[in-house]
Amino acid sequence: MSVDQQHTVTFQPGDIVCEGVPHEANLLRVALLEGVHINASCGGTGGCGKCKVSMDSGDFEGGRSAKLSDEDFEAGLRLACRVKVMGDLTVTIPEESRMGDAVALTHERRPGPGRVLTAQDLEQLVEGWSVAPVVRKYLLELTAPDAANNINDLDRLKLGLKSQHKLEEVSVDFEVIKDLPSALREQDWSVTATVVETSRGPKVIQVTPGDLTSDDYSIALDIGTTSIYAQLLDLNSGRTLAEASDYNGQISYGEDVITRIVHARKPGGRKRLREAVVATINGVIGKVLEKTGIDSCQVSHMVAAGNTTMTHLLTGVDPAYIRVDPYVPAAAFLPPVRADSLGIDACGHVHLYTFPCIASYVGGDIVSGIVGSGVFQTEKVTLYIDIGTNGEVVVGNSEWLVATSCSAGPAFEGGGIKHGMRATRGAIEAVQVEPSTGEPHILTIGGRKALGICGSGIIDAVAELLEAGILEQNGKFNGEAESEWLRRDQDGRWEYVLVRDEFTASGVQDIVITEPDIDNLMRAKGAIFAGISTLLDSVGMEMDAVEQVYVAGGFGKYLQLDRAAAIGLFPEMDAERFTFVGNGSLLGARLVSFSRDMLAAAENVARMMTNIELSDNQRFMDEYMAALFFPHTNMKWFPRMEKILGKLK
Amino acid sequence: MSVDQQHTVTFQPGDIVCEGVPHEANLLRVALLEGVHINASCGGTGGCGKCKVSMDSGDFEGGRSAKLSDEDFEAGLRLACRVKVMGDLTVTIPEESRMGDAVALTHERRPGPGRVLTAQDLEQLVEGWSVAPVVRKYLLELTAPDAANNINDLDRLKLGLKSQHKLEEVSVDFEVIKDLPSALREQDWSVTATVVETSRGPKVIQVTPGDLTSDDYSIALDIGTTSIYAQLLDLNSGRTLAEASDYNGQISYGEDVITRIVHARKPGGRKRLREAVVATINGVIGKVLEKTGIDSCQVSHMVAAGNTTMTHLLTGVDPAYIRVDPYVPAAAFLPPVRADSLGIDACGHVHLYTFPCIASYVGGDIVSGIVGSGVFQTEKVTLYIDIGTNGEVVVGNSEWLVATSCSAGPAFEGGGIKHGMRATRGAIEAVQVEPSTGEPHILTIGGRKALGICGSGIIDAVAELLEAGILEQNGKFNGEAESEWLRRDQDGRWEYVLVRDEFTASGVQDIVITEPDIDNLMRAKGAIFAGISTLLDSVGMEMDAVEQVYVAGGFGKYLQLDRAAAIGLFPEMDAERFTFVGNGSLLGARLVSFSRDMLAAAENVARMMTNIELSDNQRFMDEYMAALFFPHTNMKWFPRMEKILGKLK
Ligand code: FES
Ligand code: FES
Repeated sequence: MSVDQQHTVTFQPGDIVCEGVPHEANLLRVALLEGVHINASCGGTGGCGKCKVSMDSGDFEGGRSAKLSDEDFEAGLRLACRVKVMGDLTVTIPEESRMGDAVALTHERRPGPGRVLTAQDLEQLVEGWSVAPVVRKYLLELTAPDAANNINDLDRLKLGLKSQHKLEEVSVDFEVIKDLPSALREQDWSVTATVVETSRGPKVIQVTPGDLTSDDYSIALDIGTTSIYAQLLDLNSGRTLAEASDYNGQISYGEDVITRIVHARKPGGRKRLREAVVATINGVIGKVLEKTGIDSCQVSHMVAAGNTTMTHLLTGVDPAYIRVDPYVPAAAFLPPVRADSLGIDACGHVHLYTFPCIASYVGGDIVSGIVGSGVFQTEKVTLYIDIGTNGEVVVGNSEWLVATSCSAGPAFEGGGIKHGMRATRGAIEAVQVEPSTGEPHILTIGGRKALGICGSGIIDAVAELLEAGILEQNGKFNGEAESEWLRRDQDGRWEYVLVRDEFTASGVQDIVITEPDIDNLMRAKGAIFAGISTLLDSVGMEMDAVEQVYVAGGFGKYLQLDRAAAIGLFPEMDAERFTFVGNGSLLGARLVSFSRDMLAAAENVARMMTNIELSDNQRFMDEYMAALFFPHTNMKWFPRMEKILGKLK
Repeated sequence: MSVDQQHTVTFQPGDIVCEGVPHEANLLRVALLEGVHINASCGGTGGCGKCKVSMDSGDFEGGRSAKLSDEDFEAGLRLACRVKVMGDLTVTIPEESRMGDAVALTHERRPGPGRVLTAQDLEQLVEGWSVAPVVRKYLLELTAPDAANNINDLDRLKLGLKSQHKLEEVSVDFEVIKDLPSALREQDWSVTATVVETSRGPKVIQVTPGDLTSDDYSIALDIGTTSIYAQLLDLNSGRTLAEASDYNGQISYGEDVITRIVHARKPGGRKRLREAVVATINGVIGKVLEKTGIDSCQVSHMVAAGNTTMTHLLTGVDPAYIRVDPYVPAAAFLPPVRADSLGIDACGHVHLYTFPCIASYVGGDIVSGIVGSGVFQTEKVTLYIDIGTNGEVVVGNSEWLVATSCSAGPAFEGGGIKHGMRATRGAIEAVQVEPSTGEPHILTIGGRKALGICGSGIIDAVAELLEAGILEQNGKFNGEAESEWLRRDQDGRWEYVLVRDEFTASGVQDIVITEPDIDNLMRAKGAIFAGISTLLDSVGMEMDAVEQVYVAGGFGKYLQLDRAAAIGLFPEMDAERFTFVGNGSLLGARLVSFSRDMLAAAENVARMMTNIELSDNQRFMDEYMAALFFPHTNMKWFPRMEKILGKLK
């Protein structure tokens, strides 16, 4: 059974049909994401017993915990939070698990989810390329020298590349020449030459005895400020063989790029930071090699995409002026560098290609994403958004591209939020608020006891609280809303309880949302929305000119489009225009590993993309001030929310 | 007083005028080289007292030893071997110091010496070039970035090189990029960029704050099997600032290239040999820097010329197949390599350029010599000969060049000769034999007690013994010659005594020449003469087509043209056609340091030069057999010797 197989789940009452449900999906999650209310106080741990549903027909697994009585089990009831969807299902939500007639209502007002692509879809975002890597292995069958033809080994190699593979004006790395005589003779003048296509012509970087052309691999890397992802690629078949990831070891020197740049200025700091990220890279490379049993010397190439600071720090380039007005990186295009010279566990011939950067805060990860998602090929005006600590926004198509970065702050990654955390196990990723009582229903990642709330969870919570009338559009709690979950803390400040202490991982402290949390979120979403509108304005466009939106980054994985629009992160748009591309940076690195044309495309993207600096941009400041409201002071792009909020008044 | 000042010395009786005598020349040496006989048994140490002359007029210094009586001194007599020529001189050789009427006779039959060039002459052998090194420093005055112009530092540097120095499509070394931000800002955006012109465009290899363009130096190296020479060059003025030399530290692993190649195959051998030669290089570089007070980081470039094996060993390239039929080097053209990667004490940006080689036994030293001596520019058919362990011979001009190497064996360097030694202090460098008595008169290098005999000494001795009728043309002693210096050893084999034990350094053993010594010399000179004639034959020419002869190598320094012709090393030719260019290899390395055009010329020479392999060449074998006779079985090119030898019969 394919991992990509999808099922249909029908909720009763109300005939709410959810299509495209992934195999083994969590049933409570399916309901929450679809806007179907099911009571859930414990985050989906099986601990509250509130999420009981009746399994009418279809394949599923699980659904039991100590909180489900034998009678309920016999009667066909299960805990939705513990059910895995294994086939098409019909499920009835009993009255005790519902919030009145909310089921039908909720579903009607929800737009469908954006397009979340399968691994295969993602690999097909870009068209018209074939596997023709910038680094390739060639088999050479040379004739042994004799008195009549005793040219030197190096020229013999070059002549062979010319006559057998039409490679002209080849240069040969010094390290190859050193041991060329024995390499050529070991297997009777049959050798495999690894050749990289450089901007200055083809260059031989390795010569090994015998035919090793069938073993040719590349490693694609996404060097995030927080996480590092690696893919092992087969350059012959064009297949992705293995994937691994880990936290960037630089985190211990600071969470964001600014603190790392500050650290880099300390004595030995730059070296420490390089070694830290290289240690993580070596770890993930080790994992993908171990998974596949491939030897590191069969890897011919590495391609890394990262933001400007990460690219500088990985390659040991001084990042000091990235953070100093007027924000100048040391370099945009770096030449390929020997991977082992950086400390990466790689054979001496392997060079690391790093994606070119655009500016201090629009880096190689964005260029990579634009290539990997196919934005550079499309005629449609596309908005490409990568949300992390900085939100990077690109608008354009195959003809033009403008980019900017908005200092959104870390709210979307859980930073600056009282109980905020990254989107890892135990993080509240989805929240529903029962409109009549203001009761929260939550789901945590992995169905663990709640540890805190991540970016998508806080967006959900704020959107739901707005729609329930518990939160005002200015970001302040409505003290007149009647809900036992809205309360004052000991200092008299309003807060909203998401999870009672008994259902939290700590067991002793409620998880709450505070007004400062909401304020941080408002500034974060305001910066991104203002960035989008300023960027569009710079090319004389309005929001409705955007024909499609690509959302990249791990953040997008849990993001609900309508919730994001409800708080004003994006304008309201048809869900069909949205595509979640996941790790766009890694997509591009993978593509560039496989195709020299795509490498050329990346360099072309980097040259054509214009950076708009927002830091002293008056238009941006105006847009930002207007965006400090939920969803926005100007409701033009938020008709659905205008209607909902209008009804509340 | 210039070191190059020359004097005229007139010998009486006979009015023998020697022009062009260098300042401070040794008077005995002047006489010997001119063919003027003065008795001298002790090698010029002042020990035998036989070389008394009367100083009639002119400036001189010295001339006294314990062997000169007060009466003789008062009478104006001096020991010629202790006299330094300080001005024009007239000298009378008294009868007791003469050998009958040999003075006049000898001088008449001598051709003049070949052209020995002064340092300045040597620098002017090549025409039409100016100082425009392949590595150059450029001053850049950049403007600081601001919000309106915040391109990255690297692109700012490139734009500056383009607008201020018209350098297009520049690449920048990764190491430069790493610290570019601080380098640019340290002196307020004023920097010196060091740029190397590569085959693939200009490349920035160093960026330093401020204006350092006036400090720009190069080091030219001659990497000989036996000795290493270094010159420190000022790339701004085109001047040679200092010179140093030392024995190649690889000597402890073998005297010749073959034993070194054998050693290189041992575990760790290649590395040991590289480290040995690099240690010597670091020593001579240290010396030239110390002499001038120049810092190693002001050196921008290094250029090395060496034979094929030396070039391989210096750069760590496997030389194994150089000595295996069909004699294939790993490479002819090596890319420039970071000097510090080889262990050379140099700043990280300094690259070592090695001269291209032609074949296993015609190396970069020969290419360098052809460039440095101007052979590549001349219309005249030129014979270029570099005599060491291998004799390399080139024939050609600006249009064509053919080259070969003849396994001459080490006789010219004193190898395979019973009392043979290199041309260092204490070596007998010149020999005269008094025809009537067969008595030898000798001069040692440095006027020290004789330690042995070097290449030019043994050539002299053999030529003199032939002309005195003591040696037969077949290389056997004439047992019927009456001379107390010709004797049988205890095993009954003939030998000729050059120095009695009392005048040798050992003090206990006579220095002699044996028939096996003479046999080795015959084979050595035969190989070179046969190489020359085979090479000429390969282009359809005879000896008389040669318009000029350039003799390179330290060996040439002490070589007497007429003595070399007397044994048949060269054909008899007008002395005017001969030029001694000294260290041709170093001349070329110097030139290529100064001029990128000359570097291009070197590569062109390497491409146009054809190697003729002699090892299984029948024509060469025939020529070689014919040359195993003094001076040759065919006397066509030796009319003078034919006459002299005819008289003896
Ligand atoms: S038991 Fe399922 S949500 Fe609590
Ligand atoms: S003293 Fe002058 S040669 Fe012996």
